Amino acid sequence: MYWKPDLESSEPVFRQIMRYFEERIIRGELSPGQSLPSERSLAEEIKVNRSTVSMAYDELRSTGLVRSVRGRGTHVSEDLWGVIPSRIPNWNLYTSKGAFLPGLPLDLRIREASNMPDIINLARSELSPDLFPVSDLQRLLGKMSLSIPLGYSDPRGARQLRETLVKHLGEQYDIHVDSDQILITTGAQQSLHLITQCLLAPGDSVVLEGPSYAYSLSLFTSAGLRLFQIPMDEYGLQPEEVVELYRRHKVRMVFVNPTYHNPTGTTLTPQRRKRLIEICSELRLPIVEDDAYSALTLDDTITPPSPLVTVEGGYNNVIYLGSMSKTVAPGLRIGWVVGPSAVIQRLADAKEQMDLGTSAISQELARTFIESEWTTHIKKLQKNLSIRRDCMISALGRLDNKNISWTVPNGGYHVWCRTNLTAKDSDILEIGIRHKILFVPGGLYGAQRGYIKFSFARATIEEIEEGIHRFGEILKL
Amino acid sequence: MYWKPDLESSEPVFRQIMRYFEERIIRGELSPGQSLPSERSLAEEIKVNRSTVSMAYDELRSTGLVRSVRGRGTHVSEDLWGVIPSRIPNWNLYTSKGAFLPGLPLDLRIREASNMPDIINLARSELSPDLFPVSDLQRLLGKMSLSIPLGYSDPRGARQLRETLVKHLGEQYDIHVDSDQILITTGAQQSLHLITQCLLAPGDSVVLEGPSYAYSLSLFTSAGLRLFQIPMDEYGLQPEEVVELYRRHKVRMVFVNPTYHNPTGTTLTPQRRKRLIEICSELRLPIVEDDAYSALTLDDTITPPSPLVTVEGGYNNVIYLGSMSKTVAPGLRIGWVVGPSAVIQRLADAKEQMDLGTSAISQELARTFIESEWTTHIKKLQKNLSIRRDCMISALGRLDNKNISWTVPNGGYHVWCRTNLTAKDSDILEIGIRHKILFVPGGLYGAQRGYIKFSFARATIEEIEEGIHRFGEILKL
Repeated sequence: MYWKPDLESSEPVFRQIMRYFEERIIRGELSPGQSLPSERSLAEEIKVNRSTVSMAYDELRSTGLVRSVRGRGTHVSEDLWGVIPSRIPNWNLYTSKGAFLPGLPLDLRIREASNMPDIINLARSELSPDLFPVSDLQRLLGKMSLSIPLGYSDPRGARQLRETLVKHLGEQYDIHVDSDQILITTGAQQSLHLITQCLLAPGDSVVLEGPSYAYSLSLFTSAGLRLFQIPMDEYGLQPEEVVELYRRHKVRMVFVNPTYHNPTGTTLTPQRRKRLIEICSELRLPIVEDDAYSALTLDDTITPPSPLVTVEGGYNNVIYLGSMSKTVAPGLRIGWVVGPSAVIQRLADAKEQMDLGTSAISQELARTFIESEWTTHIKKLQKNLSIRRDCMISALGRLDNKNISWTVPNGGYHVWCRTNLTAKDSDILEIGIRHKILFVPGGLYGAQRGYIKFSFARATIEEIEEGIHRFGEILKL
Repeated sequence: MYWKPDLESSEPVFRQIMRYFEERIIRGELSPGQSLPSERSLAEEIKVNRSTVSMAYDELRSTGLVRSVRGRGTHVSEDLWGVIPSRIPNWNLYTSKGAFLPGLPLDLRIREASNMPDIINLARSELSPDLFPVSDLQRLLGKMSLSIPLGYSDPRGARQLRETLVKHLGEQYDIHVDSDQILITTGAQQSLHLITQCLLAPGDSVVLEGPSYAYSLSLFTSAGLRLFQIPMDEYGLQPEEVVELYRRHKVRMVFVNPTYHNPTGTTLTPQRRKRLIEICSELRLPIVEDDAYSALTLDDTITPPSPLVTVEGGYNNVIYLGSMSKTVAPGLRIGWVVGPSAVIQRLADAKEQMDLGTSAISQELARTFIESEWTTHIKKLQKNLSIRRDCMISALGRLDNKNISWTVPNGGYHVWCRTNLTAKDSDILEIGIRHKILFVPGGLYGAQRGYIKFSFARATIEEIEEGIHRFGEILKL
């Protein structure tokens, strides 16, 4: 085989491999029944990871072009006639276009393993369904008045919800803005997508905390952004480092998650918040502040610092992202962007072209929930999450193992652990899966080897105890 | 300029003017080098003395924000660095990036004019709010069970809704697919956005009916697509023309709205449907079938042909788009894409990166509505819309004017008229606005001069009669 994938190409290697075979099959150079090389031998020959070849073969199988039979390997389908060529669009050629890259292999593997029976999932940053305020939502739905606009409406979102948010953000977060500075989105994921599509261009550099959950988001890489890490310590990111990064990489935007950071659990100190705004103001560098967790303080004695956007100069420099996914339920698909009104208008124009706005029903449910249930619900949630956190911390303590250390987070979902594990992240993940325990190896978030993120939001108390116990067994290997 | 100084304010008017420009410059809405209005024209526009404007401009000059040069007027300073903005991102530079173009001028003007008092709106393709099944929806919300997944879920959409759609599409539309061939979206707009982003690339050629409402969608032009028209007659598009267009423009996709077409109201004949699929199969050209209106037949004696996707070869070649926006209410933001499962998977991956899925609440409401209310509601809606249509047709007849002709549509929202008006579309629109009547000049949809689209879905009976009467006055001018 003379062909080699082009490693410099913007087209993912697995897709190049897939296309290589697809074209040969369609042209008849590989005939029905003919064998493809084994995954391992092909991987060696063209010098790529075996998992890359696996992905390519998976795709080929999904198109019906090839089949795999145990003991016989992978071969071109015998009944190709009617499957693909002559009278069907080459959908593959179409679906390989466009700007959406597949997820990272580690992330895909975690998702896949989530469905395995008896596995304990401490990887997922999602509330346990029993923590969703189902009966509150049910009651609010029951008395919801549909005297709200049900037609096409303001792409910035329902006026009533934006007005409720003006009040809510003022009271709960000390953020004081007008309703034209708020855009309602289908969750923070859409907020980020809009920002990458409207305010950035392929090749732009963005700095974010190192580590950051955002490294695992394929939406950044799909947008062609170059990501650089701002070093962190226990007080959060180190603002002075932004200056040097800016010089070296012509940074265009700062993305941060300053309060109860995912994955480290740290909170940026007020001094550093002030300094970060000063530096970014000086450099005229916009900041995106992801504030998914700050409502979830887990200790009565603690009040987190006000959001970055409220620091002097913040309203001019910061685009603030909020969401109900981590505090109420992801299924509502309600998030918001707060920023200068010109920026909000621009994002709203784009959102209008993308989907003509967010569900009126979801927006109204979100509005009534914030108006009537927020305070009680958040208190209850804080209490439940703090029980889960304490349980995880106790379980870690009971391991009585010097090879793992952690910091107790004051809020959010996550415990970030440093271990002496030296294997590759993908190997550690596989060992975990064999022990029926799922966690996030730090590498997925850009950390060095040996770091592990556990989430305590989704699992039950029993699962947390058993899960950490199983992890202890892994540490002893 | 919509801004006006507040003459009642305690703040002097000249200072209000100064602050108005200062804020816009600082926020980047006015960029370096951009001109300010002349003192005289601004004074006229906001109805103040010219000397007041002069004072404001003097103040602005003294801050260094603007400069005046003889013969060039007053403009924002080029070297703003160090004056003020030094500490604020140049948002203008950011918001001018990205791929979202503003709407077409004619479209923007129509939207703007919609808010004018006493104007009769026959332009909007939207149901009148009194035709939304509000009490049905209200009842379904009241008894909705939230035992549905409220976490992050399958990006293709809620399993239950997809299964309901399998049944619904089979029974009502003769479309027989599996649930993995269905993607739930936030309305047809998102379906189209996903298709343009995932299956097409900038520079690609797409053919669509001439005229087509889709010409007015900035999402196509934002995606960098080149659009070409397939000629139509009273039986819909002429399939043979696709061959020549394909040869000349290397067409990548066909976009059609074959049943109760927007704007012409025509329905593609079964023979032509068959021929279109044959031609596109031969050319391996995918078809996107927008089927927003086919449920809205307005004559008891008529059954529209089955969708294109059901024609032999259709399941392999057609991506079918459905939506609840034209049949139930746009505010639900629920639509669907039906296509080969590999295509659906690809679109779902992209949707996941864009917004992690559609509101679980809206999906469940859509599901229960389709399960329990669809048939009764659609019958009622057909009846109401046919009354409105008949009323519009009678009103057109009463004009007794040879300079306008039309075809009676058997379904949908629109009456497409040919007139002898020879003025530019934008001028005709303005004449309409002066007569307090809004319609869509055909040029917005790629038609020649003199064509006009009226929608009868949104206006009341009285408005339709009065609106057509006013249009009659315009024809007499």
